[in-house]
Amino acid sequence: MADYVYGPGRTHLFVPGPVNIPDPVIRAMSRNNEDYRSPAIPALTKTLLEDVKQIFKTTTGTPFMFPTTGTGAWESALTNTLSPGDRIVSFSLGQFSLLWIDQQQRLGFNVDVVESDWGYGADLAALETKLRTDSSHTIKAICIVHNETATGVTNDLHAVRKLLDAYRHPALLLVDGVSSICALDFRMDEWGVDVALTGSQKALSLPTGLGIVCASPKALEASKTAKSVRVFFDWKDYLKFYKMGTYWPYTPSIQLLYGLRAGLDLIFEEGLENVIKRHARLGAATRLAVEAWGLKNCTQKEENFSDTVTAVVVPAYIDSAEIVKHAWKRYNLSLGLGLNKVAGKVFRIGHLGNLNELQLLGCLSGVEMVLKDVGYPVKLGSGVAAAAAYLSNSTPLIPSRI
Amino acid sequence: MADYVYGPGRTHLFVPGPVNIPDPVIRAMSRNNEDYRSPAIPALTKTLLEDVKQIFKTTTGTPFMFPTTGTGAWESALTNTLSPGDRIVSFSLGQFSLLWIDQQQRLGFNVDVVESDWGYGADLAALETKLRTDSSHTIKAICIVHNETATGVTNDLHAVRKLLDAYRHPALLLVDGVSSICALDFRMDEWGVDVALTGSQKALSLPTGLGIVCASPKALEASKTAKSVRVFFDWKDYLKFYKMGTYWPYTPSIQLLYGLRAGLDLIFEEGLENVIKRHARLGAATRLAVEAWGLKNCTQKEENFSDTVTAVVVPAYIDSAEIVKHAWKRYNLSLGLGLNKVAGKVFRIGHLGNLNELQLLGCLSGVEMVLKDVGYPVKLGSGVAAAAAYLSNSTPLIPSRI
Amino acid sequence: MADYVYGPGRTHLFVPGPVNIPDPVIRAMSRNNEDYRSPAIPALTKTLLEDVKQIFKTTTGTPFMFPTTGTGAWESALTNTLSPGDRIVSFSLGQFSLLWIDQQQRLGFNVDVVESDWGYGADLAALETKLRTDSSHTIKAICIVHNETATGVTNDLHAVRKLLDAYRHPALLLVDGVSSICALDFRMDEWGVDVALTGSQKALSLPTGLGIVCASPKALEASKTAKSVRVFFDWKDYLKFYKMGTYWPYTPSIQLLYGLRAGLDLIFEEGLENVIKRHARLGAATRLAVEAWGLKNCTQKEENFSDTVTAVVVPAYIDSAEIVKHAWKRYNLSLGLGLNKVAGKVFRIGHLGNLNELQLLGCLSGVEMVLKDVGYPVKLGSGVAAAAAYLSNSTPLIPSRI
Amino acid sequence: MADYVYGPGRTHLFVPGPVNIPDPVIRAMSRNNEDYRSPAIPALTKTLLEDVKQIFKTTTGTPFMFPTTGTGAWESALTNTLSPGDRIVSFSLGQFSLLWIDQQQRLGFNVDVVESDWGYGADLAALETKLRTDSSHTIKAICIVHNETATGVTNDLHAVRKLLDAYRHPALLLVDGVSSICALDFRMDEWGVDVALTGSQKALSLPTGLGIVCASPKALEASKTAKSVRVFFDWKDYLKFYKMGTYWPYTPSIQLLYGLRAGLDLIFEEGLENVIKRHARLGAATRLAVEAWGLKNCTQKEENFSDTVTAVVVPAYIDSAEIVKHAWKRYNLSLGLGLNKVAGKVFRIGHLGNLNELQLLGCLSGVEMVLKDVGYPVKLGSGVAAAAAYLSNSTPLIPSRI
Repeated sequence: MADYVYGPGRTHLFVPGPVNIPDPVIRAMSRNNEDYRSPAIPALTKTLLEDVKQIFKTTTGTPFMFPTTGTGAWESALTNTLSPGDRIVSFSLGQFSLLWIDQQQRLGFNVDVVESDWGYGADLAALETKLRTDSSHTIKAICIVHNETATGVTNDLHAVRKLLDAYRHPALLLVDGVSSICALDFRMDEWGVDVALTGSQKALSLPTGLGIVCASPKALEASKTAKSVRVFFDWKDYLKFYKMGTYWPYTPSIQLLYGLRAGLDLIFEEGLENVIKRHARLGAATRLAVEAWGLKNCTQKEENFSDTVTAVVVPAYIDSAEIVKHAWKRYNLSLGLGLNKVAGKVFRIGHLGNLNELQLLGCLSGVEMVLKDVGYPVKLGSGVAAAAAYLSNSTPLIPSRI
Repeated sequence: MADYVYGPGRTHLFVPGPVNIPDPVIRAMSRNNEDYRSPAIPALTKTLLEDVKQIFKTTTGTPFMFPTTGTGAWESALTNTLSPGDRIVSFSLGQFSLLWIDQQQRLGFNVDVVESDWGYGADLAALETKLRTDSSHTIKAICIVHNETATGVTNDLHAVRKLLDAYRHPALLLVDGVSSICALDFRMDEWGVDVALTGSQKALSLPTGLGIVCASPKALEASKTAKSVRVFFDWKDYLKFYKMGTYWPYTPSIQLLYGLRAGLDLIFEEGLENVIKRHARLGAATRLAVEAWGLKNCTQKEENFSDTVTAVVVPAYIDSAEIVKHAWKRYNLSLGLGLNKVAGKVFRIGHLGNLNELQLLGCLSGVEMVLKDVGYPVKLGSGVAAAAAYLSNSTPLIPSRI
Repeated sequence: MADYVYGPGRTHLFVPGPVNIPDPVIRAMSRNNEDYRSPAIPALTKTLLEDVKQIFKTTTGTPFMFPTTGTGAWESALTNTLSPGDRIVSFSLGQFSLLWIDQQQRLGFNVDVVESDWGYGADLAALETKLRTDSSHTIKAICIVHNETATGVTNDLHAVRKLLDAYRHPALLLVDGVSSICALDFRMDEWGVDVALTGSQKALSLPTGLGIVCASPKALEASKTAKSVRVFFDWKDYLKFYKMGTYWPYTPSIQLLYGLRAGLDLIFEEGLENVIKRHARLGAATRLAVEAWGLKNCTQKEENFSDTVTAVVVPAYIDSAEIVKHAWKRYNLSLGLGLNKVAGKVFRIGHLGNLNELQLLGCLSGVEMVLKDVGYPVKLGSGVAAAAAYLSNSTPLIPSRI
Repeated sequence: MADYVYGPGRTHLFVPGPVNIPDPVIRAMSRNNEDYRSPAIPALTKTLLEDVKQIFKTTTGTPFMFPTTGTGAWESALTNTLSPGDRIVSFSLGQFSLLWIDQQQRLGFNVDVVESDWGYGADLAALETKLRTDSSHTIKAICIVHNETATGVTNDLHAVRKLLDAYRHPALLLVDGVSSICALDFRMDEWGVDVALTGSQKALSLPTGLGIVCASPKALEASKTAKSVRVFFDWKDYLKFYKMGTYWPYTPSIQLLYGLRAGLDLIFEEGLENVIKRHARLGAATRLAVEAWGLKNCTQKEENFSDTVTAVVVPAYIDSAEIVKHAWKRYNLSLGLGLNKVAGKVFRIGHLGNLNELQLLGCLSGVEMVLKDVGYPVKLGSGVAAAAAYLSNSTPLIPSRI
């Protein structure tokens, strides 16, 4: 079966998720089911749980791999650590933080929303005020997206930890790392993150289907008393099966387990730090192209620039949805739509996952042609030239080929 | 990458899930991610939602395809239709009905458990008593597994419907069809099932990862007032996106969508009725083999014999777990363990999904050799002969090859 | 198993063969073997033999699909139509025509070589002289490569036919279409080609392994008396099995048959004329980039410009082999080496097969960075800009997405 | 795309080639093309050429991997070592030896054919007579199939070597190992085989497409003076590229190289001696089943019983072609046809390649049902019982699972 709507050549997939899957991972997943109660799958799972901790940069955390998406991982993070009515501080700065807040509210928490204009980072000054005035520790958790995928804004998690420490505040720190973990610098233990989570279809470069949630010892402790109703997303069932050494309270996707194994092997072969540097390189190159085109980054401050996704603001006379549609229709290029408040105003270039320099440059050329097609006076080649100039100076030799 | 623990030749996978995936489906899934917001994925999804209704035999139901497992599908069925404290009648007759009941209790429902000894079907006489005495309609739902996978017991759903109708009882009828739908005769509309659900890794013969839930108009209506807390499993979010024509409130697995498309195509090519007949044939053949071996079926009454899984009772001097372990270690054969009350006492032969006669006969030969190895005085060839005699009379020519 | 020497992201494969395989073809080939004597494989083969004729633009030709490479296809073309000692006129204009001539000589023909400087097309004036003076018809065949892959030179086959007709010369016209058929305009019947051949790993975008040879009625007639020794490459054995309807004198690759089926389906979906136009577009864009870089095309005359491969001449102070090596080591880009007389002097960009505009632009950006790396004063973005300007004006909407 | 003619479940593929491909090999081959001139492919090829020698049990031989089939490998063996008119002794004992002899004659050799009735082994007494009387060494080569696939006859190669040695005869020993190497005990060096060959689709369990030819030093020496015309199959071109370290005179199939790598890895993981024992086990079990059915093995003497294929003689009132057709149409079972002299009289069960005990037992059950269907009074279960009794005593635990 061909793609459902076929176009010649390879699709340039530059949405910020789901992202490109490396061929060795596709191969590893191309397999029949297996009995997950045989000795093979627990043995495989054991290596995955061990190795996935490296991606989170934790040695003390406990990972859970739910057969779900990021939305489910959010729910697991919240319901295992909190009770209905608990006060949580949550930052609203884009569509995904907004959706998480919506979930928090529907799950019955008392959500203390800290708003930022879209394009700006989390308002940590407001957080500080709240912490300072919360000597009775009514705040049970801080919820923050590390990287807001809708606007391309990366928040400073270390600063959040420092505030909590400064006020000796015991609130849990719950982090959505969906578009950051395994791509941006993320340090669960060092930054005292209590629950971190990601989805397989983001920087891990797998299909959708694994929501990976990692809990600190403090979070695990909290789960013992948290009163939120939960079954499918309950950590307790997993912990019970971890103890038995069979690992799975219900059927996992055999294919995703093998895929994750292959994906982690590739990441470790490249080196996690090199993966992060590659993302930094591609992010910087993309921003230089945007600048060369004379367009604005939706992200307002350099400190919040995201190395996994760039939201590009288009002139008012252009509908960014047209750009996305046209890119797909004429150049087999998939870009991200602007969402909610920035619908029609931005389009997004996802530059995360298993990607390299020439793929990005192909995408950027495509964006240039699309911009021209929709009537923006871009100089063809300008963005590519700017990006290439940077990449030409910063791209290392491929280690295995030296 | 080879299988994690390699053995020569093809594994005979005869656990009652996850089951064998046909090669055309494996092929269809061997692909890169795609933008699920492009026009292609909604177009594909539309066909799937339409066609999946045929598998449930419903024209009025609304299907939801959650990125989850059967356990998640259970949760979705319950939380969308019921409120905490609601009285539900639930039948306990094996490990999976037990787990569902555990979930029902943890979700805060008032579960009125109707027990059967393991090996027996749901106690419909007890249900009748409850319905008769419930003139005030305190019972909000009846929860029943169509086919209890732990014991190989198929329940008579039509009889349940008739009881409800006889007493004009408005309780919702929620059915776990995990190991029945697409293999056994299941008629959502005709039997007045309000919520039916299955998992992709069962008779649909896909990888784990889709929990398919189908809601009747009455169930949809109930969901508007049901007070159970839910977000990830909420139908409402899906319905909102169905209206917009984009279908997915969060990222689906592109691979599973293409896999489901390919799987449905194969089912329709064979013909759903032929698929069901094939399961009947393989089930009957398996039972004849068990009888020829001089062993007992865990299922006590013929009317409850399951055509998707047979739980075989072993003599007291044999540990059925040894059978399962040995089958895998020596013959590359995966059988199902006995669970909970029947642990050590039964092993299970799953005969569901994309399977044919010779695969089953290979399995049955393997079981014979394993029985001999663990000290049971089986006559080698006896079960295979009995099964083959039946199959030889009942197997049709493959239509496409006539 | 990962690629043997892994690099992050997708390799930009721009050698002039083997070329990129579309994912639907990779999927179609990911399968077990089958009995090639069952009814399925002849039925499949029948469709392939019919459809492959469309690619050659012949209705009267007889195609043979040998389990071999282009080199084997050459041998089949020659040995089935000629006898040792036969005089043949053959054009030498690059490495592949040279290799064919070497084969012709080793097979014992009396090869009358017409030399051109590399970069020039076949010397048809010399051919005319030979034909004019060959009233006794000692010339039994004209051998010509349609597109010389080493230099990127396309020859005018129609002109050859016109010469033969003008002199009413009965010589057979044998054409190597390895890097032309299914990419360039090629018309077997209209141009009176007697044997045309290609390899699966070229414009058909499959793995290596099928050498497809198509024989005109006149060629088939010649094969009855041709005395060259042949067994594996003998058409006679195929014709015998064609008559029996089993098609294969020895075991074919089941995978390549399904792959060819899928590949042809994609070509017909796009439309063969659109495929050819796409190649024209990518060829023109590449040449514009080369010009913008200030480099020379190895091809000397515009009439010979090849739309499947461009050989780029580098300045004398640069070793083109370094460019190829560096592209692979730093940018995961595979370019073609200069061969034989042009080794070190040219590198080649293959732009044939299942490719699109953005893939080419990614490649061209990569070439620019490599040129800079090896010390050539290229203006980054210049070639991409020139190519994009052209593509932006000429690329149609993808028909299935309009 | 489904199989071309779909049937539910997995096909039991029991033709003696092409055989079942293990899933890890299918996975390894599911990939895009690569530049075969990059450093990766030569590095991979080097390991293959080294490791393939182990399969031939040679340390002094030189392997060549031609993009061809067994028929092409035959041609390569002959044309590289012999000159037209050379006298060769060749054994005719079945369809494949016959086809080889046909090739030898068409290639212009003076073939001294030693006939055996079909079902009997090579007539070594006749060979001895010829050698004894050939003091002038007019015999240049002995050509023998190790295992005649049409009749299931294995010849004693060691005995041939002993005869040659006894008469100090310098004739080359050329062996068709197509259905033996990597399945039966084959020892190139120890038995003084000069050219041995096989095809990838046989015991190596790959797709068709590699003809592997291994030449002794003496054969290589002979190739320097052999006058047979050859180009595609010439060893010289390979040797030239071996020296350069690029290995390939023309484009190899990237997929088959990775497939061979994965296949060899599996063989070495299992252990070549264990692979051979597994074939002995499956062969013995098959023969016991045939005996239990009351049918005759086409092979007349126990010493010639083949462990890779069993040709079963059917009673005169049954057409064996009906058995093969019916097996495929009703049970999705592929059996081998009787060929030429034994057409209609035998059907063949191929039991070579990556197969295990339960797969074979499934096949045997299928054969029983088919026999019954075509009117042979078989006792269902009888053959399976006999085979299982043997396998139950002889099958070892899977080493990786102990």
